[in-house]
Amino acid sequence: MKEIRFFYDPCVSGELPDDEARHALKVLRLVPGDEICLMDGRGTWYRAEISTSTSHRCMYKVVEQMPQEPAWKGYLHLAMAPTKLNDRVEWFAEKATEIGFDELSFLDCQFSERHVIKNERIDKILISAMKQSHKSSKPILNEMQDFSHFVSQSYEGDKFICHCYEERDVCEAGEKPLLMNVLRPSVPTLVMIGPEGDFSIQEVRLAHANGFRSVSLGRSRLRTETAALVAVHCMQLINQKI
Amino acid sequence: MKEIRFFYDPCVSGELPDDEARHALKVLRLVPGDEICLMDGRGTWYRAEISTSTSHRCMYKVVEQMPQEPAWKGYLHLAMAPTKLNDRVEWFAEKATEIGFDELSFLDCQFSERHVIKNERIDKILISAMKQSHKSSKPILNEMQDFSHFVSQSYEGDKFICHCYEERDVCEAGEKPLLMNVLRPSVPTLVMIGPEGDFSIQEVRLAHANGFRSVSLGRSRLRTETAALVAVHCMQLINQKI
Repeated sequence: MKEIRFFYDPCVSGELPDDEARHALKVLRLVPGDEICLMDGRGTWYRAEISTSTSHRCMYKVVEQMPQEPAWKGYLHLAMAPTKLNDRVEWFAEKATEIGFDELSFLDCQFSERHVIKNERIDKILISAMKQSHKSSKPILNEMQDFSHFVSQSYEGDKFICHCYEERDVCEAGEKPLLMNVLRPSVPTLVMIGPEGDFSIQEVRLAHANGFRSVSLGRSRLRTETAALVAVHCMQLINQKI
Repeated sequence: MKEIRFFYDPCVSGELPDDEARHALKVLRLVPGDEICLMDGRGTWYRAEISTSTSHRCMYKVVEQMPQEPAWKGYLHLAMAPTKLNDRVEWFAEKATEIGFDELSFLDCQFSERHVIKNERIDKILISAMKQSHKSSKPILNEMQDFSHFVSQSYEGDKFICHCYEERDVCEAGEKPLLMNVLRPSVPTLVMIGPEGDFSIQEVRLAHANGFRSVSLGRSRLRTETAALVAVHCMQLINQKI
C-alpha cells in the first residue's frame, strides 16, 4: 500500500479524479479490494480501499485517517523572481519540494525577465514531487505579485533579502551576514531571491524599510534557481528534525 | 573584460580553440586590442589581449597571470551512481559546479540503472558552469568505476556513504548521524550517493570495511541527484570562506 499515493482531498468515500483513476486502473492495474494511500496535501494521509471500479472510474472508501507530524520545524517561505527559462523554475519547484519547504511566492521585480508564470503547471510539479518524496503537505503556491506590494505585507517571523550588492551600496550598515549564520530554528522565515539581473538598489532599500535584512549565500556566484534552492536547503538544515 | 571568459590552457601567446574563437569573433564581435580573460581550470586566470584575428581564427597574447585563491577550504569529492535519465545527472553537474566542489566520480553499483556515462558531455557542462559562475578551477571528472574497486582505494581525509537503511540492518552500530553534523571544515571529504534503488547492503558493508562511515541527509526522501546536490551543499557550507 505504501508506495501507491494519490493526491486528493478525500471524503469518507468518493471517486478518484480522472487522471488518478486512469493511473490506478491502467498503469497500476488495481482492482476492488486493493489498498491505496490518499494525501490531502495538508498534512493527512488516508488509508483507503478501492470499492468498485469500471473501465474509467474508480471509487474508494477511506479506512483510516493518518495525520502526519510536520517533518520540520518552523515555516519556510521562499519568494523568487521566476527565471527567464521556464524549465529552471520548474526544476527548482521539484527540488525544493523534495528537500522540503512550506510556501512559494513569485515576485515581479524591476529587472525581471519574466512577468507571467503558469501556476497551474508549477502546481502539478509540486504535487508530483510531494507524492514522489512522500511529503504530507503540498507547498502553498501564490500568484505572482509585484515586488513592492509583496514586501509591504506583514509576515510573521524573520525576513531576508539575498542580493549581490555590497552593503555600503544600499545602506550604511556593515557586512552582509551569511544566511546560514542568521537563520533561527523554529522561527517562521521568509527569504527573497531576485531575478537574473538581481534586485534593483531601490528594491533592496524598500525591503530594508519593510524590515527585511540583507544576507549573503556565500562567495559562489549562483544562478537564480540555484540561489533559491540553496536558500531552501539552508532553511531546511536549520529546522530539520533528526 | 571581466565578463568575457574563455576556458583554455594558455601559453604566453597562442590561438583560441575553434569554438572559443567563433564565440569571440561572431558572438562577442571582439577585435584586436580587446581584452579577454582566459581560465586554465586549475586555479589561474589570465588577462590577455587579442593580437590578430581572421574570419575564423583568433590569436591572443597573455598580459598578466592572475592566480586565484581557492574559494573554499578542504577538498570536496562527490561520488555518485549516475541517474537513469541523463538530464538529471547533467543538471547535478551544473548546479554542483555553481555551488562549488572539487571532484566528481561516477560509480557502477549493484542496483545501478545506468552503467555507461558520456564524460565528454558532463565535462562540457562542468566547463560551462565554471565559466558562468566564475570559478577558477574545474572539478576533476573521473571515469566511471566499479563500486568495489572505488571504495578499496585510499583517500585522504573523511569518507562517508549515504544510504536509506537503518543502521541495524547493515551493522551493529548505533544511529546514523546527519552528514551536516559530522563534516569537519578544512578536512578533505568524500561522500558517496547511491543509485535510485540505493546501495545494496553488501555494498554498505564493504564501504564500512574500507573505512567509510554511514550518514543520513535527513528525513526527506530525495532523488539521487537531489541527494548528491544536498551533500555538495553541506560540504560547501562547512568549508565556505566568508
